[in-house]
Amino acid sequence: MADCIFCQIVAGKSPCYKIYEDDRFFAFLDINPNVAGHTLIIPKIHYRWVYEVPDFAEYWQVVLKITRAIQKSLKPKWINYFTYGVIPHAHIHLFPRDENIGLLGFDGIIPGKIKVEGKQLEEIAKKITSEFKN
Amino acid sequence: MADCIFCQIVAGKSPCYKIYEDDRFFAFLDINPNVAGHTLIIPKIHYRWVYEVPDFAEYWQVVLKITRAIQKSLKPKWINYFTYGVIPHAHIHLFPRDENIGLLGFDGIIPGKIKVEGKQLEEIAKKITSEFKN
Repeated sequence: MADCIFCQIVAGKSPCYKIYEDDRFFAFLDINPNVAGHTLIIPKIHYRWVYEVPDFAEYWQVVLKITRAIQKSLKPKWINYFTYGVIPHAHIHLFPRDENIGLLGFDGIIPGKIKVEGKQLEEIAKKITSEFKN
Repeated sequence: MADCIFCQIVAGKSPCYKIYEDDRFFAFLDINPNVAGHTLIIPKIHYRWVYEVPDFAEYWQVVLKITRAIQKSLKPKWINYFTYGVIPHAHIHLFPRDENIGLLGFDGIIPGKIKVEGKQLEEIAKKITSEFKN
């Protein structure tokens, strides 16, 4: 879809810190992360909700592959997933977690996302993607 | 595990409003729901995190099967998933959604879960499970 930011990212028309790509799926760092390593995994084809993606089980296999790479590279204590849907292109949020400060990685009562500079995002993306090459 | 509430539910030692069961997975209504139809899907064998479940893709196939039954029976506008992990037995939350009142189905700033009586939970469970029989 022409006006969909995630479709633009898949098409290379909008920049991103890419983590993973295959013929059907694509993953990149959230540019406004709640935690370091906050990753979005999307189908290349535009669907509204994750449960409308025809390859639903394969979609989660990709999420698992990225989970393993993040476990090895960032060594978080645990990982959360969630699907919500503010941006109307199916996406799965992956949150590497080290501290129990609320569901989204920060205390929801006093909203305040972490600030991660472009340079740091680039380094995190490199760390994660290096695991796919091993 | 003897002291795990979800293991007790699987073993039939603790009551629940059951939605689904096969040889590896089990689903039931959250007894303290955030939204009507709030469902928990778990592996029968005890694992700490969902990404440690060996049949991860099959696990999500079960989630999809329950999603379809909930779409047909409760007709929500959309469905969210999330994994968090307060109870240390792997579980996936499924939230049927009708209103955009925060990620968890209520406004996190003013926490206030909906109250659903046992009788209502029983009726919701019946509605959903009837879809598996069709």
